[in-house]
Amino acid sequence: MARSARRPDDAAEQDLAAVAIANDAAERVRGTTSPNPPVGAVILDTDGLIAGVGATSPVGGPHAEIMALGVAGERARGGTAVVTLEPCNHTGRTGPCTEALVEAGVARVVYAVDDPNPQAAGGAHALRAAGVEVQGGVGADLVERTTLRAWLHRQSVGRAHVTWKFAASLDGRSAAADGTSQWITGPEARALVHAQRARLDAIVVGTGTVLADDPWLTAREPDGSLAARQPLRVVVGEREIPASSRVLDDAAETLILRTRDPHDVIAALADRPDVLLEGGPHLAGAFLEAGLIDRVQAFLSPVLLGAGAAAVEDAGVGTIAEALRFTRESVEAVGPDLLLTLVPNGA
Amino acid sequence: MARSARRPDDAAEQDLAAVAIANDAAERVRGTTSPNPPVGAVILDTDGLIAGVGATSPVGGPHAEIMALGVAGERARGGTAVVTLEPCNHTGRTGPCTEALVEAGVARVVYAVDDPNPQAAGGAHALRAAGVEVQGGVGADLVERTTLRAWLHRQSVGRAHVTWKFAASLDGRSAAADGTSQWITGPEARALVHAQRARLDAIVVGTGTVLADDPWLTAREPDGSLAARQPLRVVVGEREIPASSRVLDDAAETLILRTRDPHDVIAALADRPDVLLEGGPHLAGAFLEAGLIDRVQAFLSPVLLGAGAAAVEDAGVGTIAEALRFTRESVEAVGPDLLLTLVPNGA
Ligand SMILES: NC(=O)c1ccc[n+]([C@@H]2O[C@H](COP(=O)([O-])OP(=O)(O)OC[C@H]3O[C@@H](n4cnc5c(N)ncnc54)[C@H](OP(=O)(O)O)[C@@H]3O)[C@@H](O)[C@H]2O)c1
Ligand SMILES: NC(=O)c1ccc[n+]([C@@H]2O[C@H](COP(=O)([O-])OP(=O)(O)OC[C@H]3O[C@@H](n4cnc5c(N)ncnc54)[C@H](OP(=O)(O)O)[C@@H]3O)[C@@H](O)[C@H]2O)c1
Repeated sequence: MARSARRPDDAAEQDLAAVAIANDAAERVRGTTSPNPPVGAVILDTDGLIAGVGATSPVGGPHAEIMALGVAGERARGGTAVVTLEPCNHTGRTGPCTEALVEAGVARVVYAVDDPNPQAAGGAHALRAAGVEVQGGVGADLVERTTLRAWLHRQSVGRAHVTWKFAASLDGRSAAADGTSQWITGPEARALVHAQRARLDAIVVGTGTVLADDPWLTAREPDGSLAARQPLRVVVGEREIPASSRVLDDAAETLILRTRDPHDVIAALADRPDVLLEGGPHLAGAFLEAGLIDRVQAFLSPVLLGAGAAAVEDAGVGTIAEALRFTRESVEAVGPDLLLTLVPNGA
Repeated sequence: MARSARRPDDAAEQDLAAVAIANDAAERVRGTTSPNPPVGAVILDTDGLIAGVGATSPVGGPHAEIMALGVAGERARGGTAVVTLEPCNHTGRTGPCTEALVEAGVARVVYAVDDPNPQAAGGAHALRAAGVEVQGGVGADLVERTTLRAWLHRQSVGRAHVTWKFAASLDGRSAAADGTSQWITGPEARALVHAQRARLDAIVVGTGTVLADDPWLTAREPDGSLAARQPLRVVVGEREIPASSRVLDDAAETLILRTRDPHDVIAALADRPDVLLEGGPHLAGAFLEAGLIDRVQAFLSPVLLGAGAAAVEDAGVGTIAEALRFTRESVEAVGPDLLLTLVPNGA
């Protein structure tokens, strides 16, 4: 559709749709760009048609804008660049993206999130100075909640973003009376967990989970084969785990942290922004008590057990006034199960 | 809108919308019609406009169709009657509704649910024989899940319909470590529970809940005053409860059942089709184990406790293969909480 033919509402909707496409591109490289953020970019030509899509390359390689401009070629001239993060304005291992956009003749830049990094920021200003029309904040909600979440968190809080994931019955049990827990949730939820793992920087469990379940903690494809990328496996606790433990196989790297202090864990993972705590109940309780959980993903299965281990133990709550309170970010059906995503109140 | 101007899709949608209005009318009398079912009726005139709405009167009084016809008067002639249940064809305490509809000159009857009661059934047949156009099954899903649910259940299964309601944290606790539980859920959820209570036939708890919480178990208006109608309060268990217990006040009737057998409870409530089990965890476990729960309403609060009593104890499940499995009927946000409604698998 030609720009001139668009009503203002259509234009705003098209910008949002393009940010969503850029965000999908970013999602595909999430986990591979550290220490750079996973960014996505879309180039629209003068008719508003998609001329190129790109995402951040592994460190040292081109940024998302450069990738997308490379695909668009001459079609970028007079068109719009849509990016999930404000284009950078500094010469690091790559040249400033602002220069490349100006050189390509882009007339308009739309981006979602302001760059919080003082070194790289100033992109919007530089683009405007070069005569480019710039609009920031478009689709910022979406991008902040998804692809840039962990990176933004580390920029602002100075430590990894920790998601605690658990699976439980409706009555909050993560195993039956005899300890069996396979499976509380359905195959759809398990497939989702594996797809997520491949994009993470680290998966953390306590020695209790290793000793009880002997899990692999690898990301696997639906056919059971190992995913191309594996997060660091982290085992926390003072007990020794058997040398034959599956987490010690060579499918992925493993870090053994002989500590009981969640802050030690966070410190050891300083260069890994996106961390998943996969349990069990005691380690989760310790992280919750320490205020180190930034997001909860609860897979709730439509099952009742009436006995068996709880999903979380000892979170330092003695009475109802001390309850750890959260705000629901989303709720979605995953096969027969529900996935509730929550963030701590006051976060 | 004139009938002649409606496209077939519009007509079907208007029928469904009219069933929903009739169902709302039935909802307002739910709990007051026993042993008759709570039925709603809408009369549409020849232009498809609503000419009258009615619902079942208390026993001995007119049925829904008669109430709605009374409001519609002459506007019923040539119009459509929309009813949540197949119009009755027998002379009980009131004359057959089929006769009244024919006499009023109704040209078409739309109803949701076939009457399963052999005595009252045959209404559709009688109406057709009298030259009335009849369509059954319209909006049957809605009506079967809501206003006629308990009554249909008793007609088919021969016992009361039991809903187990519980409120719990995300980790399945219904109280904190020190026993405090006010409030896990928000004011919206508590208001909904009170609104529901006023339409029930009985509320059941164990002696444990009475001894621990000393609840009133009455239905109260938002301002704290007693609702006009109160369900029977039922306390189950062998222990004696203090004469000063609030459930023994004169705000509503109370039945003390000195038993531990859920089947005894059901038998004692034979003439009360719509029963709510409000806990606590041990009585709920016993009902679940006995297979006597027909619906679960779980109010899940976005809170973690990490300690405290579980929402259900001892449901007879020893291993994961014996888990009590349910199918999600709905999930809705109630303020900050989620209300999950589930039915047992295979029910
Ligand atoms: N449903 C789920 O989502 C899920 C997920 C994971 C596990 N699980 C289940 O959880 C069960 C294991 O429970 P768990 O509680 O033993 O597992 P865990 O939380 O993984 O491990 C507990 C161990 O972690 C160590 N630890 C480190 N820091 C701690 C701290 N600050 N406070 C307390 N402990 C700390 C302690 O071991 P040291 O004595 O060695 O220091 C402790 O015994 C298994 O049956 C497994 O199936 C369920
Ligand atoms: N979150 C919620 O939705 C909710 C709702 C209600 C209660 N609660 C909490 O639950 C706690 C009380 O727990 P509770 O388990 O004692 O309450 P309960 O289930 O109401 O009462 C248990 C008692 O019921 C009697 N009982 C009758 N039939 C039984 C059977 N087949 N099996 C076992 N017991 C049977 C027993 O008493 P006898 O010894 O007298 O026979 C038993 O001790 C309170 O703290 C209350 O706050 C929470």
